[in-house]
Amino acid sequence: MVPEACVQLLPVSPPTVNWNSAVVKNILLVPSSSSAMGGSDDSDLIEQHAEEEMGDKNRAASSASLMGGSSCREGHSSTQSSHRLLAYSDALISIIATVMILPVAHTKVESSEVRLDDVPAAAFPPDLNAFLLQELRQSLQFLLSAKIAVYLMTFLIVTVAWAAHIRLFQVIVRIDDCLALLNLACMMLITFLPYTFSLMAMFPKNILGMLLFCGCVMVIGIIQCVIVLYAFSHPFLLNEQIQISENQNFYKSHILKVIMRVPIMCFFASIFSFIFFQLSYVLLAIVVFLPYISQTFKWCRSKAIGQVEESPDEVLFYTYLPSEPLSKERVEAFSDGVYAIVATLLILDICEDNVPDPAVVQQQFGGSLIAALQAYGPEYLAYFGSFATVGLLWFVHHSLFLHVTKTTRFMGLLNTFSLAFVGGLPLAYQLTHEFPDHSHNELEAIQISCVIVFFAGIFQLAIWVAALYTERESLHPDVWYGGREHVFMLAKLALYPCVALGTFFLTCVLSEFSASIFHLMEITVPFAFLLLRLLVRIGLALLRLLFCPDRPDLRSMVEEDESRVSFNSVVT
Amino acid sequence: MVPEACVQLLPVSPPTVNWNSAVVKNILLVPSSSSAMGGSDDSDLIEQHAEEEMGDKNRAASSASLMGGSSCREGHSSTQSSHRLLAYSDALISIIATVMILPVAHTKVESSEVRLDDVPAAAFPPDLNAFLLQELRQSLQFLLSAKIAVYLMTFLIVTVAWAAHIRLFQVIVRIDDCLALLNLACMMLITFLPYTFSLMAMFPKNILGMLLFCGCVMVIGIIQCVIVLYAFSHPFLLNEQIQISENQNFYKSHILKVIMRVPIMCFFASIFSFIFFQLSYVLLAIVVFLPYISQTFKWCRSKAIGQVEESPDEVLFYTYLPSEPLSKERVEAFSDGVYAIVATLLILDICEDNVPDPAVVQQQFGGSLIAALQAYGPEYLAYFGSFATVGLLWFVHHSLFLHVTKTTRFMGLLNTFSLAFVGGLPLAYQLTHEFPDHSHNELEAIQISCVIVFFAGIFQLAIWVAALYTERESLHPDVWYGGREHVFMLAKLALYPCVALGTFFLTCVLSEFSASIFHLMEITVPFAFLLLRLLVRIGLALLRLLFCPDRPDLRSMVEEDESRVSFNSVVT
Repeated sequence: MVPEACVQLLPVSPPTVNWNSAVVKNILLVPSSSSAMGGSDDSDLIEQHAEEEMGDKNRAASSASLMGGSSCREGHSSTQSSHRLLAYSDALISIIATVMILPVAHTKVESSEVRLDDVPAAAFPPDLNAFLLQELRQSLQFLLSAKIAVYLMTFLIVTVAWAAHIRLFQVIVRIDDCLALLNLACMMLITFLPYTFSLMAMFPKNILGMLLFCGCVMVIGIIQCVIVLYAFSHPFLLNEQIQISENQNFYKSHILKVIMRVPIMCFFASIFSFIFFQLSYVLLAIVVFLPYISQTFKWCRSKAIGQVEESPDEVLFYTYLPSEPLSKERVEAFSDGVYAIVATLLILDICEDNVPDPAVVQQQFGGSLIAALQAYGPEYLAYFGSFATVGLLWFVHHSLFLHVTKTTRFMGLLNTFSLAFVGGLPLAYQLTHEFPDHSHNELEAIQISCVIVFFAGIFQLAIWVAALYTERESLHPDVWYGGREHVFMLAKLALYPCVALGTFFLTCVLSEFSASIFHLMEITVPFAFLLLRLLVRIGLALLRLLFCPDRPDLRSMVEEDESRVSFNSVVT
Repeated sequence: MVPEACVQLLPVSPPTVNWNSAVVKNILLVPSSSSAMGGSDDSDLIEQHAEEEMGDKNRAASSASLMGGSSCREGHSSTQSSHRLLAYSDALISIIATVMILPVAHTKVESSEVRLDDVPAAAFPPDLNAFLLQELRQSLQFLLSAKIAVYLMTFLIVTVAWAAHIRLFQVIVRIDDCLALLNLACMMLITFLPYTFSLMAMFPKNILGMLLFCGCVMVIGIIQCVIVLYAFSHPFLLNEQIQISENQNFYKSHILKVIMRVPIMCFFASIFSFIFFQLSYVLLAIVVFLPYISQTFKWCRSKAIGQVEESPDEVLFYTYLPSEPLSKERVEAFSDGVYAIVATLLILDICEDNVPDPAVVQQQFGGSLIAALQAYGPEYLAYFGSFATVGLLWFVHHSLFLHVTKTTRFMGLLNTFSLAFVGGLPLAYQLTHEFPDHSHNELEAIQISCVIVFFAGIFQLAIWVAALYTERESLHPDVWYGGREHVFMLAKLALYPCVALGTFFLTCVLSEFSASIFHLMEITVPFAFLLLRLLVRIGLALLRLLFCPDRPDLRSMVEEDESRVSFNSVVT
């Protein structure tokens, strides 16, 4: 197989050994645009030798360009791999997506501060104290729900912007300085979106927030159009498939049309906001759900007047189908960013708020730092608990995406939902330690934590189920339905939802011991993950003993599976 | 060249086509450990066919494993690529490294809040007002300097921990579930370090902070030892070079010795802290600078008694030589994390603090939201200014590392210094807008901003200079000394230091217009980057006209260079 491939590919150039066959055939038919730049054959040979030395790297890079869009120093001299630009954009967007949880967090912290410091416990009888707390909590209720709404809306809108960014840079696979700077400008405006949202939430009847938001979106749209126009005027920046395509102009107009839809809607929304501002909110909601709406329309039309034939080219980019591929690399990078920020969210607060003032320590605790720090004890516990939970959820996500070979839009959506719940986790954990022991609030906080963990886990499981539906395309052969690795992966994914559900119902029944049950859960789960492989084997053996004691083939099937895996390891 | 390589490599297996020749030779001599796991030949062939189909991906992965340490699903069934684990660790560590700037930031914000809200401008005559401000500033001075010291110390200690982490995972290139969980535990403790530091800074005479810090470091050291022991008991997790080496035990003991040095020192520091706590600070300083001290010792010894011969194996890992390679991928990932957090630092504050309360807007501004937001105007300006500056510094860093092919420890150190200054940038920018116009404070703040930008830029330039010293190894041929790309890169790197220096001296001379000069600088620089390629060409042409009007060869040299680059593009 390999020598054949070499011979077949030699006419082109050595680094292209691992381009996929479709692209290679196209290149053999159509001269690539970069070869038009010319050069004498002698120098070509010398350069070829230099390229040969760095062969490893180039091969990795050119094959990577097929998978995710990064390629290292190809084409024009000023052209660069887009890999790092995308990684940086992912980092920025993931920070922004999770940042609106901070105002929610600090609403809580303020309320607890009021309780601890401004209302000295001795000044009022306990009943009045409890009453004051209740009052305080209810006045915060509205503010809090508004902030949570802002958090969820921001998460949604930012992930929509991020999906648009992915789509754009699946078409443009190489960048130059100009594109990098334009992208930075785009990022700056995206990072400003959450602020406009919180203005809209705090002043729902004032049109300023709406105008700012629409303005930002319009400028982002225009910058993206400039990026597309620039890239199509420098075709070596584009995806190979478009680069060698005959109808580049069709692609260009299609992409521009899709991109411009959103700013045009926003333009109308901003005009309507002067006349009848409720309508502009409706328009904005339409903008966010536009892909889904247009899909529904298409589906209805196809049902009504029969399947409309589309050009096969159009299906590749900007289709908004649930099965549209989404760069796996970028989904991972974005998730990593969110998990990292969320895991450190509480330590940010601890570093800032929980270093006692030397004067306070001297006055209130007689100079004993340990006594002063003991007041913060629950917050450290919340930090370690939430770090461990977020870290382990990351670990499950990491294991899951090791087995996934292709991500689709639908899996991306499920991933977003999972991440949105992960974002709220540290605060839920913080809440569990904020209320007095055995109080109704404590039980409520613990149950909220369980629900959040459950949903974060269940959406990860949903990604797995979605991947299983198209397992031939989107999963590694090791974990196709029925293998031992499949069972193991399933166990990993099911562990957190099961534990969360179990804790939830246990706390309902044994509400007095809710805190101890919760702490026990926190401590047990990491060890459960460590021993999971063993547990799954024991579980499988037990199942075999219980349900089919006379079927020895299950055991051998498992062993067969094991040996298959080790063959794999020999080959690689 | 290519068919020859294919024939040479066929006896091994197709996916290894792009392993570098040294490793390949070693594999041909020594049977790789994974092949000992066995399997029948028929299945081997079937598996080989399956592997063939995914050839592109595997090739990319196996070549990537040589460069940075990531490889996709190789060896044992439970073995995983370490790539994403490292990316997540980098994200966590970069967040933690920059997080201690937040307490510094919020010290400032509080002071300004006191000025704006609690001291109404009309209540005191302007003179007294200014006096009060002055008082407030001086009382904050001590607190602020302590916090800045904590920020710098944290940045230093976290980057030291990060360097140790890189070193560890240059030896261990594949992971399994157990290692991933151990690494997460390690990360949890690293993220706790900044807090112990701030305790130490606030209570320098209390040993609790010191004990906590030493405890964390000792536990981190023990976890790292467990990781090393675990990896050496599962050799397929190790670097290929160690995997095929005869003296694995030597490596193991060498690495353990290096890792255990730090926790042992910390153990002594914690014991000394009970007796004579100043000594423990000295010990801690020694821990941080241990590599440099041992290098100096070695150098002195080699000068005194002549060069001591070392085993060639030892030079590969844990040498602490300035030329020791540092994974370029991870330096980039860490820098991306820091730049991303720093760029969004101000929007975090803005989202949290600068959404006015509806009641306040109604009372103070007569319901006019625009009027209320105008009070925050300078903060938006600070945000956009600092985002643009950090973004452009990232852009320069990105361009620089596109040309760099190999990073050394020394370049990593310079990068760390640059990033430490970048971390302070948003606050400096925020300061510039916090003081009244034309005041002495405003001038000072603007000059501090210029100094920070200057140092952030000059350390980037230093990385470039360090790379130029070993340009054959560490730079791409395009930018070797003398080429046009070299001049262009130099211009990019020099732009920010030059502009910052220029602004600094201009504000010294024209101190009345300092704010306008600063704003002009903020607006001009992005456009300067857009036009830099043009400017460099004009500059070169001018230089040629001025200094050597009769030497036409410079022009042709530049053109030659250009054509060389386009040859490159033809080959790829």
